[in-house]
Amino acid sequence: MTLVAIADAGGWAYDESGLNAATIAQVKAGGSVAEMENGHASDDAIGAIIKLGDKIDGVFLALPNLPNDFIPGVVTRFVDAGFQGVFSDALKRTRAMEMVFEMDDKLRAAGCVYLTGCGATPGLLTAAAALAAQSFAEVESVDIWWGVGIARWDDYKATIREDIAHLPGYDVEKAKLLSDAEVEALLNETDGKLTLHEMEHADDVMLERAGVLSREQVTVGGVMDTRRAQKPVSTTMTLTGTTFEGKRSQHKFILGDETSMAANVCGPALGYLARAHWLRERGVCGVFGSAEMMPMVVK
Amino acid sequence: MTLVAIADAGGWAYDESGLNAATIAQVKAGGSVAEMENGHASDDAIGAIIKLGDKIDGVFLALPNLPNDFIPGVVTRFVDAGFQGVFSDALKRTRAMEMVFEMDDKLRAAGCVYLTGCGATPGLLTAAAALAAQSFAEVESVDIWWGVGIARWDDYKATIREDIAHLPGYDVEKAKLLSDAEVEALLNETDGKLTLHEMEHADDVMLERAGVLSREQVTVGGVMDTRRAQKPVSTTMTLTGTTFEGKRSQHKFILGDETSMAANVCGPALGYLARAHWLRERGVCGVFGSAEMMPMVVK
Repeated sequence: MTLVAIADAGGWAYDESGLNAATIAQVKAGGSVAEMENGHASDDAIGAIIKLGDKIDGVFLALPNLPNDFIPGVVTRFVDAGFQGVFSDALKRTRAMEMVFEMDDKLRAAGCVYLTGCGATPGLLTAAAALAAQSFAEVESVDIWWGVGIARWDDYKATIREDIAHLPGYDVEKAKLLSDAEVEALLNETDGKLTLHEMEHADDVMLERAGVLSREQVTVGGVMDTRRAQKPVSTTMTLTGTTFEGKRSQHKFILGDETSMAANVCGPALGYLARAHWLRERGVCGVFGSAEMMPMVVK
Repeated sequence: MTLVAIADAGGWAYDESGLNAATIAQVKAGGSVAEMENGHASDDAIGAIIKLGDKIDGVFLALPNLPNDFIPGVVTRFVDAGFQGVFSDALKRTRAMEMVFEMDDKLRAAGCVYLTGCGATPGLLTAAAALAAQSFAEVESVDIWWGVGIARWDDYKATIREDIAHLPGYDVEKAKLLSDAEVEALLNETDGKLTLHEMEHADDVMLERAGVLSREQVTVGGVMDTRRAQKPVSTTMTLTGTTFEGKRSQHKFILGDETSMAANVCGPALGYLARAHWLRERGVCGVFGSAEMMPMVVK
């Protein structure tokens, strides 16, 4: 795989022979794509990427925090412009993913493959749940409990606001309107920790679609520490079920505490992008949840 | 899915509307398939099943303990007789699985799909390793350590001999020739526990083929207690790797102690059989390892 193009709200960059990882890291450290080597400022960076056409085989849509219709809208633009390739995303919200699944006919007709929910959760942990389910005649619950530790919250402003949106009394719009000082004040109340229960997380619709269990049997929550890089709890997927012999038990998938959100989201998303390409090469098109496919190893 | 046919060394049974689970349980308790309702004695039970032709969509080859060429031989007979459908197996030995992978061209030409290594290990734990690998830029090891507890060893005579074959000083042929009394004496030396290291297990070739790591970085071992149903250790897959940021860590997949070998082998094998059928319906044919695919949920 070669990363040839990248876009953010203010610009895009393209290099047929591959963009340089070091310059991308600069962008992450506060710059914008427009300032990169090979970068161009644009108020329609997505449109510029779409114009690259068949120079691109696959697109990773990395932003889970924008309005629900953002990613379906981007994909519609690609398809309507005649793009024939594959997509993966790191979507989190149930409603946004339902909108993606509704695009199945459109993507099949266009000869495209879209694998959705390909981050950590949904993604890695959801697929682990679909695997774990295989030992059981009846699955009663899937419980995902994540821990994230970040040394400085302002490196992940959008993600923190997405998490605040899940707290009682908040929603996506309210969280988005908080000033940095207001976020800081909120975090001060709990020594920088956000504990979230019953999050709207698309693991539920993915596991329901895969036939594992119904969506209300899936719970997602966790603890984010915004002041320490160490995870406050180990991220764990626990599936509880009953075997064909009537034994009740639990399988667990536990992520190593030293692995970052970036490693657990972007690794799977690229692995699934490669799987999407594999499917398309074999004539299998449409929209699938990541719990229906294995990711591939990407080098 | 409907189970319509079953075969053992001495006979076969077929019922288009589905065989009865209760009568199959009788067979497991010491009888033979020939004595079942709808059962027939035969010295070529496989040949009789092959003659059922398109009454069968998929075949689960459940016996991992026969000579390496047994399962490839059975599949060759199906294909040469014009069978067009799918296979899954619960193979364990690396060399046997390599023989299955060598049949890729033959199965593709015949319009068949074969998913191999679809039990617990290889199978469930191998797929979990391929998933876990997604978080890491470099994978250094996959370590599978299983625990099995069975109340009475003589319910699993073939499996116990397969495990004894892995002990220093034994091989498959030597283990097979042991009398029941000799097995009993061997088990007496360790209070009924067999501890096995560096087993020849096809997880290695499957993960190598999937690009996760090279086969010598995979180790499989475990403890079988032949006198207590409780597992002596929890079956655990541990993958060790380094993330793109240079962090070394481990992801783990742990099976619930109450789950039996039967639940952890047969559940995945049927889930993969359904996935094989899914692939075939979409025109994707050939041989694949279970670590390359997700199993489906079977009802």
